[in-house]
Amino acid sequence: MARLRAPRKGPGRPRRSAAAGTGFTLAQVAAAVGGRVHGDDGASLTGVATLETAGPQDLSWVVDERRSRKVLDSRAGALLVPDEGLRAGRPCVVVGSPQLALALWLERLHPPERASGGVARGSFVHGTAKLAAGVSVEAGATVEKGARLGARTRVRPGAFIGQDAVVGEDCIVGPGAAILARCRVGNRCILQPGAVVGSDGFGYVWDGEGHRKVSQVGIARLEDDVEIGANATVDRATLGETVIGRGTKIDNLVQVGHNVIVGEHSILCGQAGIGGSSRLGRGVTLAGQAGVSDHATIGDGAVLTGQAGIARQGRVEAGEVVSGMPALPHREFLRRAALVGKLEAALARIAALESTLKNLEKGGPPWSSGSAKS
Amino acid sequence: MARLRAPRKGPGRPRRSAAAGTGFTLAQVAAAVGGRVHGDDGASLTGVATLETAGPQDLSWVVDERRSRKVLDSRAGALLVPDEGLRAGRPCVVVGSPQLALALWLERLHPPERASGGVARGSFVHGTAKLAAGVSVEAGATVEKGARLGARTRVRPGAFIGQDAVVGEDCIVGPGAAILARCRVGNRCILQPGAVVGSDGFGYVWDGEGHRKVSQVGIARLEDDVEIGANATVDRATLGETVIGRGTKIDNLVQVGHNVIVGEHSILCGQAGIGGSSRLGRGVTLAGQAGVSDHATIGDGAVLTGQAGIARQGRVEAGEVVSGMPALPHREFLRRAALVGKLEAALARIAALESTLKNLEKGGPPWSSGSAKS
Amino acid sequence: MARLRAPRKGPGRPRRSAAAGTGFTLAQVAAAVGGRVHGDDGASLTGVATLETAGPQDLSWVVDERRSRKVLDSRAGALLVPDEGLRAGRPCVVVGSPQLALALWLERLHPPERASGGVARGSFVHGTAKLAAGVSVEAGATVEKGARLGARTRVRPGAFIGQDAVVGEDCIVGPGAAILARCRVGNRCILQPGAVVGSDGFGYVWDGEGHRKVSQVGIARLEDDVEIGANATVDRATLGETVIGRGTKIDNLVQVGHNVIVGEHSILCGQAGIGGSSRLGRGVTLAGQAGVSDHATIGDGAVLTGQAGIARQGRVEAGEVVSGMPALPHREFLRRAALVGKLEAALARIAALESTLKNLEKGGPPWSSGSAKS
Repeated sequence: MARLRAPRKGPGRPRRSAAAGTGFTLAQVAAAVGGRVHGDDGASLTGVATLETAGPQDLSWVVDERRSRKVLDSRAGALLVPDEGLRAGRPCVVVGSPQLALALWLERLHPPERASGGVARGSFVHGTAKLAAGVSVEAGATVEKGARLGARTRVRPGAFIGQDAVVGEDCIVGPGAAILARCRVGNRCILQPGAVVGSDGFGYVWDGEGHRKVSQVGIARLEDDVEIGANATVDRATLGETVIGRGTKIDNLVQVGHNVIVGEHSILCGQAGIGGSSRLGRGVTLAGQAGVSDHATIGDGAVLTGQAGIARQGRVEAGEVVSGMPALPHREFLRRAALVGKLEAALARIAALESTLKNLEKGGPPWSSGSAKS
Repeated sequence: MARLRAPRKGPGRPRRSAAAGTGFTLAQVAAAVGGRVHGDDGASLTGVATLETAGPQDLSWVVDERRSRKVLDSRAGALLVPDEGLRAGRPCVVVGSPQLALALWLERLHPPERASGGVARGSFVHGTAKLAAGVSVEAGATVEKGARLGARTRVRPGAFIGQDAVVGEDCIVGPGAAILARCRVGNRCILQPGAVVGSDGFGYVWDGEGHRKVSQVGIARLEDDVEIGANATVDRATLGETVIGRGTKIDNLVQVGHNVIVGEHSILCGQAGIGGSSRLGRGVTLAGQAGVSDHATIGDGAVLTGQAGIARQGRVEAGEVVSGMPALPHREFLRRAALVGKLEAALARIAALESTLKNLEKGGPPWSSGSAKS
Repeated sequence: MARLRAPRKGPGRPRRSAAAGTGFTLAQVAAAVGGRVHGDDGASLTGVATLETAGPQDLSWVVDERRSRKVLDSRAGALLVPDEGLRAGRPCVVVGSPQLALALWLERLHPPERASGGVARGSFVHGTAKLAAGVSVEAGATVEKGARLGARTRVRPGAFIGQDAVVGEDCIVGPGAAILARCRVGNRCILQPGAVVGSDGFGYVWDGEGHRKVSQVGIARLEDDVEIGANATVDRATLGETVIGRGTKIDNLVQVGHNVIVGEHSILCGQAGIGGSSRLGRGVTLAGQAGVSDHATIGDGAVLTGQAGIARQGRVEAGEVVSGMPALPHREFLRRAALVGKLEAALARIAALESTLKNLEKGGPPWSSGSAKS
């Protein structure tokens, strides 16, 4: 499935791109990604595809030796490889990181679409909003009073920018995404469709008759280069700020509670959740559906594996990898799971010991069977 | 609660429907669902309700014997039953599957509202978009350049159809739902409100300074008769396609990662999640909050029970039912849970064995208490 | 981080409020929250902040003794305290509940923004919709045929009110939120951005060829004072109603299935989910990512801790606190987790017992080492 043919015209095809439209050579690839060509660099390529799906006109990539079987079987016309020894007789470009080279080449092959700029008919921009050069506000989008948008930022159809919100340069606010009042978004941030930044935190206090809402008067702030996934939610703080650190990437349907601080370059995978006032360090990874409760602390570079759960005021040390709920160091988690698998046998062994001892007690010493009766 | 009265005019009442407006007879029901009437088929009914909530003018249904107590207690005026023996003296229609008959009759009683067709004032349809006969684009919706909509497809208020996207016939794109650029949707598909198809996959590579986004240049493709729940998300592929197979139904807040392939007629329940590049077979069931990590393989007809978790590159065989995290065959999961319940007693038994043996070792043989000292 | 400075003009600052703009005194606070001032009540304050972040011009609050260390270290200029003994020499207001007093004062300091009222250019309100006095419908919002909105209710940009839906007084329907056809919402309800009320329930029946959709002809009904979090979803009933009881608060990304009944004053935290036809009592708490499957019953005041899972038709008694999946009483859950931690040692003890017994059996009685051979 994962194949990218040379873009042809018409719907359902990858966006036309000059490079791909006219094909490309390994020499062009090597120049763009900073690698060395081995073998015929004249080969004209038209697409990029995985080893499994590539054809003779496709460029593919090899991550490491473990894939070499796949390389031999692949029909790819050329490869990005970390080491010439992996090229299996094919023309290749040798690079430090084939994945990074792939990313660079895809950027080149499919440059992000340039928005035309300007305020579209059918969008609603308040007279006091400040739009920098090259900003696009598309149909059905709303920019409220006093909001500010940095240069070249694109507000897609149906998106919402609340009163006095500040959005940096070169951002994309996807269709139906929302940045609420007074929240701040850095440069080069991306909100995928339906993402919400600055919804009210979940704060109530019992007043004798019901849960009384605690006004959520703080904001949410995204630093530069943050991405928020589709329909993910980041609550504003009760007081002060909820902060997503520079370069942190958040996947679809992730929940970030009020007053949470997430450090730089962290990765929060799909459906992970973070309760109020928790602190995550730099380079933290939350795998899918992992949960961090309120007032917890997750150290730099810590990893929560899928569905791991950290209790209220829980703590994960820097660099730790934890799994399960309650969370344990990953190895311990696996060890305990394996031990539970031996539990049935253990109960049988206990029963055997009990009956042996019972015999000892009534039936005399086992080494002189019955002789005690003589 | 679950009662459907004869529609009266005014808000908060079920949509008016001729059949229900004028009441209906068992003969009409039998004809519509293909069953046989037993007992008085003249009884005039006005609504459909569960056994618990039905009144004398309501039609209800019986699934199997286990419900027969409820049948006797029910005030329902008539029944859909799989077997005449269950009708408890009431007029009934005997059918192979009462649930299917219920579905057929509800369709008849409440035909889906026909959209008027046409492009509403306040919607934004690009001049190059192709709209087939009977398409409706409602207020605040956007259809971008080169998009194509099949006959009778309905784009609800605030929905978004991206550039060069292709949507089939008789689809409903709910309020605020989004189908992004170049994605493809088959016939008779339904996107519930806020559903997102074609958001970027969650793909990054470390470039020495940060997580660099890998351009997601593939698409998401829904085959025919797929339904996507409210605020659920289906990411586009990095290269190639993310595919949701024909007839598969996806519940609210489900996440489907990039390059995932889901087979036909699968069921993904609320808040289930699937990581990148995983493959699900035909007729797979993911119960609520179940999670499948990256590069996993789930065989045809396999079932993940609620909150079950499959690890990266994990494998579930066709027809297997698994539970827990790490996932185990369901029976084994239950057995282990029960065994852990015996662990405290087991530790006590071990302690008892230890003290008995200690006595043996110092106190002489238990069967001649003290006599050894004489 | 959690500091709220005196609002200055310009973006990114808390909304201007007279009280805060001009500063305030403890006497004003005491009057507003019903407390007694101790110490200098002239101190002019300008903001509210947590103990950690407060400065000399900030009011802060102390919950109980456990915080007293923090109180001494805090730079706060004045305090809300439950007991004068906690004021650490600072001017304070003594109140029964500092949290409640905080909530009351924040309401006073930051009164919710008054909407201007009226139907904005670029919103779409059907001629038959009934809007009471002071209703606002903002840009890009849609109000369909026959819908009714109570006095002062605010429909934010891009929100959707479906045909014949009924919304009470003083509600806020956030940007992009949706209330679908015929659903009913009480007074003073809040839908955060992207919340969906009345999406179709997830109901299908196999018809021999595929999963046939069962028409979802019921509604969803929110009683008074309900709040629904960002991108949370509440499905309509198949027949009858899905009900969210008075004063119940639902956090972001929560899923409530069709025909569910949630009692009054319950709290459903982020990413919790409830399957079809389950019943929750009054004052129930579902912590983050907790899951309740179909047809389950949760008693009044019961608590599911984070990620707890209740099986299909499962039952939690009133007042019970349960954890884990399968769910156990919380103490038992912790006890078992601890016992599993002793499993490795237990297996070692079993092995030791086995070898001791083996020696007994072959090596003669331990108390006459070898003598049996003489």
